[in-house]
Amino acid sequence: MPEIVTSSHRREVPLPQAYRLMNHGPTVLVSAAHAGRANVMAAAWAMPLDFDPPKVTVVIDKSTFTRRLIEASGSFALSVPCRALADATFAAGTLSGTTQDDKFADCGLATFAAQRIEAPLVEGCVAWLECRVIDGAPERHHQHAYDLFVAEVVAAQADARVFEQGRWRADAPAALRTIHHQAGGAFFVAGETVQAAKPAA
Amino acid sequence: MPEIVTSSHRREVPLPQAYRLMNHGPTVLVSAAHAGRANVMAAAWAMPLDFDPPKVTVVIDKSTFTRRLIEASGSFALSVPCRALADATFAAGTLSGTTQDDKFADCGLATFAAQRIEAPLVEGCVAWLECRVIDGAPERHHQHAYDLFVAEVVAAQADARVFEQGRWRADAPAALRTIHHQAGGAFFVAGETVQAAKPAA
Repeated sequence: MPEIVTSSHRREVPLPQAYRLMNHGPTVLVSAAHAGRANVMAAAWAMPLDFDPPKVTVVIDKSTFTRRLIEASGSFALSVPCRALADATFAAGTLSGTTQDDKFADCGLATFAAQRIEAPLVEGCVAWLECRVIDGAPERHHQHAYDLFVAEVVAAQADARVFEQGRWRADAPAALRTIHHQAGGAFFVAGETVQAAKPAA
Repeated sequence: MPEIVTSSHRREVPLPQAYRLMNHGPTVLVSAAHAGRANVMAAAWAMPLDFDPPKVTVVIDKSTFTRRLIEASGSFALSVPCRALADATFAAGTLSGTTQDDKFADCGLATFAAQRIEAPLVEGCVAWLECRVIDGAPERHHQHAYDLFVAEVVAAQADARVFEQGRWRADAPAALRTIHHQAGGAFFVAGETVQAAKPAA
């Protein structure tokens, strides 16, 4: 496994800017932990749901071991992987934690501790959101009917080489660009940034 | 306004493949119509929610005129814009239909008729999903609490120059690549496609 060291580049992201870490639709890694067990899975179906306090929503299938850990702990982390982690992300979306003793290792992923929740964050990613599940009766309906979880973001960080001062850097290195799953392990890599013209009022 | 003709490239997408049109997280245009009025807005917070029958979920703010048309008609269309429509997409996300007589024209957007719903589809986009709102009591709670709509996709089309045989084409022209809103009119353009290695079982 390549040595991945990102800690010196991690910066706190103010919560009102946390939505920007996912606004452009990257595929994410969902991790959770409870009672000494931890797991990770990939999710293309994840998006922001509110600005401040920031919320997210993510689809987590009933068959996943990660879901059991989320339901037991009431929290999860979203780590935003980059091109360098495309193989590991596809592995996390393909292998199952119910049959793997240490799915992180099997996917070639290392972790570090979150600030506010039990779930580990994934090393080598470029952004991280720590989330607490919102769990009323209507939210439970959507968990059951649609596998859809709603959560509040309670902490956020990003790698300053790709996200700085509330903005994604257009000059980010190719290996650190976000990936966007199409199907079957094919990902779009985030390409150039275009700035749209301000519309006439 | 440039002449945009895509009709000769539009192809039906089988419903079980419709999720692939949004799986990689593009920003979309949401359109709706009711009783002779039509409107369009941009949404970065939209994603697939199920495969077959396909469902989507999208955040639509209470202040938007498009939302009133969706609530009145029970349906909406998602059109997936491309780089050539970045300015128009930003305009659709900035201007309000409550104060514009014809927001489509003001944004430089032309439309064509949908197959199954009243909402018009946006010309020059690269994929289109026609959606019917799912509207039970828990769904209404999420509409109210989170501005989150759940809908079933009842028809889907794509431009064969960019999406063919169920897959996004890696050789799509630059102008036809999907756009992914960061903030303030800055969009990532979908870049190259990387194929992740199949994980060892």
